[in-house]
Amino acid sequence: MTDAVFDLPVRPADIEAAARTLAAYVVRTPLLSSPTLDADLGARVLFKPEVLQRTGSFKFRGAFNKTSAIPAAARAGGVVAFSSGNHAQGVAAAARLLDMPAVIVMPSDAPCSKRQRTESYGAKVVLYDRDREDREAIARAIAAGRGATLVPPYDDPAIIAGQGTVGLEIAEQMQARGLSPDVVVAPASGGGLVAGIATAIRSRFPDASIMSAEPEGFDDHARSLRAGRREPHRAEGRTICDALMASIPGELTFAINQRLLAGGVTVSDAEVGQAVGFAFRELKLVVEPGGAVGLAALLAGRFEVRGKTIVIVLSGGNVDADMFAHLIA
Amino acid sequence: MTDAVFDLPVRPADIEAAARTLAAYVVRTPLLSSPTLDADLGARVLFKPEVLQRTGSFKFRGAFNKTSAIPAAARAGGVVAFSSGNHAQGVAAAARLLDMPAVIVMPSDAPCSKRQRTESYGAKVVLYDRDREDREAIARAIAAGRGATLVPPYDDPAIIAGQGTVGLEIAEQMQARGLSPDVVVAPASGGGLVAGIATAIRSRFPDASIMSAEPEGFDDHARSLRAGRREPHRAEGRTICDALMASIPGELTFAINQRLLAGGVTVSDAEVGQAVGFAFRELKLVVEPGGAVGLAALLAGRFEVRGKTIVIVLSGGNVDADMFAHLIA
Repeated sequence: MTDAVFDLPVRPADIEAAARTLAAYVVRTPLLSSPTLDADLGARVLFKPEVLQRTGSFKFRGAFNKTSAIPAAARAGGVVAFSSGNHAQGVAAAARLLDMPAVIVMPSDAPCSKRQRTESYGAKVVLYDRDREDREAIARAIAAGRGATLVPPYDDPAIIAGQGTVGLEIAEQMQARGLSPDVVVAPASGGGLVAGIATAIRSRFPDASIMSAEPEGFDDHARSLRAGRREPHRAEGRTICDALMASIPGELTFAINQRLLAGGVTVSDAEVGQAVGFAFRELKLVVEPGGAVGLAALLAGRFEVRGKTIVIVLSGGNVDADMFAHLIA
Repeated sequence: MTDAVFDLPVRPADIEAAARTLAAYVVRTPLLSSPTLDADLGARVLFKPEVLQRTGSFKFRGAFNKTSAIPAAARAGGVVAFSSGNHAQGVAAAARLLDMPAVIVMPSDAPCSKRQRTESYGAKVVLYDRDREDREAIARAIAAGRGATLVPPYDDPAIIAGQGTVGLEIAEQMQARGLSPDVVVAPASGGGLVAGIATAIRSRFPDASIMSAEPEGFDDHARSLRAGRREPHRAEGRTICDALMASIPGELTFAINQRLLAGGVTVSDAEVGQAVGFAFRELKLVVEPGGAVGLAALLAGRFEVRGKTIVIVLSGGNVDADMFAHLIA
């Protein structure tokens, strides 16, 4: 299994190259711990707070890695992306740093803060109706009209390699402390983050168990990992985890995750709300619902923790003040 | 001025000793940055988030350093402290780690979260009326009755040395990155934190300007530094900065601060509220009002920042959910 990571669509060397591309722009987020939580659980829990990342989520990493690879001749056309919010901000911020125009296609029900923040980076936002319109078709039409490059949210080797730098940092930070992760849990929507993390971590810690975390109902990764093939989720409603509503794992991401992941855990919206409140009270971190699913799974006892070293990725912190106030009340 | 720090009541070597005492118990909080803020200000701003510290504030450092120095023969009597909240939690957590009983004398209007958290560490809480009763007299009576050791909030060399480990970490973290601080701003109530920080930082960076930050009205440090002698503040009302209501600088702390501080800045409660909201939206950190006065002074333009390297100490994050919801709305 040690060699498994070396013949996949994204290799550890690609992630190391992404880390070099990102070095001057990314926030190297720390590994944080809570001695009180560790004592309560009888475990060593390390948090990777990508809420502290530029734009408030890990998405900047993949977006910058992909955007910076656009050839000079194609840069004037700028970039286009479709996103419920965090990828939008990542692409907008990357484009501004690289002095390129950006158009973002965003659902009309995305959190207000995510839309405002996307516009604050200088991007043009085009809204669509999540239930009636095809965001990919809209984005492709805009890209064709402007000569722009589409920056996909997850199913792309450069995106996965960029998100994988989260895992590379975790691995380096663990090695610097003489620690080995037993379990690493990361949120999954399209699966790019957890695929990149799994590739980076298992190249250095082949025995680590990497797990995806999803909201109940929106459990396409858990289902697909069990079935051994890509399966859509069956949810018809909404979840408070607006960042984790992709309907099916990506093709590339699932090719990786199927090989490297130990499985998927799911949590209810109520458990996610409790995790957001715990992060407020005990960790003093602002974590958005979709960024808190791994923490929710930890607190809800979804996997064995006693005596283990566990890494929980807190993937984003872009949450509206009213939603946050509601969840911490 | 380089030698000024070496003939004061707390010496750099005392802080280094405190760091060794604390090493296995304290969270070595990271230095965080916001690339967006740096670009907006044309400065390099580093945040020292003691909100991530054990008990949610820097107070654990001094409390543990002081409590761990109690001789074995006196440990059975336990400890007593009076505090509006953060020192209470620090003392309670330190006592539990050292297996000693703790009684905390706390104002009846302290934030609910601070009281509950103090009790959660196993301490007994005794409430008093802030306007009518003398907390020190109550604490001394309890100490005499139980044979307990009083752990003072700031005017004590072991407390100041413990808080100084915040400054020692900042100095080490800056040196590791090849940076020098031009300005360091820390909140002041009794002045122990800023005194310890000034001692640690100016022993390694003699040209750094260290400043206290206080709420308007509760500006006893700013007044005293200007006057050259300890002066009480003149505030009659309240501030949302419940952690920063001490009426006059400590004797020991002022002896240090008078020698080492460049001055004091003050901010309005409205500016503090904006800083708490900024930390929520942009830094994704939960900072209590009293912990945000340095950030408020930065955002309000109270001192020159352009081209400078600035360290802002975010000293605590223990804020009730309803107050936090109000401030971020």
